[in-house]
Amino acid sequence: EEEEDKLIPELPDFLTGKRFFLYGKFPQNERRLLQRYIVAFNGALEDYMSDKVQFVITSQGWDDSFEDALMENGNLSFVKPSWIFAINNRQKMLPHQPYTVVP
Amino acid sequence: EEEEDKLIPELPDFLTGKRFFLYGKFPQNERRLLQRYIVAFNGALEDYMSDKVQFVITSQGWDDSFEDALMENGNLSFVKPSWIFAINNRQKMLPHQPYTVVP
Repeated sequence: EEEEDKLIPELPDFLTGKRFFLYGKFPQNERRLLQRYIVAFNGALEDYMSDKVQFVITSQGWDDSFEDALMENGNLSFVKPSWIFAINNRQKMLPHQPYTVVP
Repeated sequence: EEEEDKLIPELPDFLTGKRFFLYGKFPQNERRLLQRYIVAFNGALEDYMSDKVQFVITSQGWDDSFEDALMENGNLSFVKPSWIFAINNRQKMLPHQPYTVVP
């Protein structure tokens, strides 16, 4: 029984308790890939920039609408997709700050 | 009595509850100026990158030591001096995210 359990691969829960919104356009299948990683790592995906969102992932760089979003929710972080891909590559949670999107 | 009170200029408390560390070298008197604004606006200045620090202000851009600092304290934000000067210019609290320092 125990030995059998060991054969079941577990998904790592790097993103537990973190809430994401994918903003704007992404190249090719990148949006789908981000969705898969975020959900696989137990993060939560929001459908819009609700006040629950902590991380806005964008491929497009800084957007003027982010200023307005910050007025509504001062805790937002705007981050590049490479943060999520780096977490997958390194197979561990990494700080988001080095991947921040700036104007 | 009330009229006299109105003549006393009050310092705005834009930075109440926020803790800062000034990292590295700053041009000319910029470090002193940052200290004055932060203290004037009721922010707290730390002498080293303690775990109480929320905002590291630097003129030097991203420093490799920031990676290590983030391992100790995942809540750190690395921000340009222009954030503090913008708060003074606009005379209101502004979100720090647009002034983030990135690698």
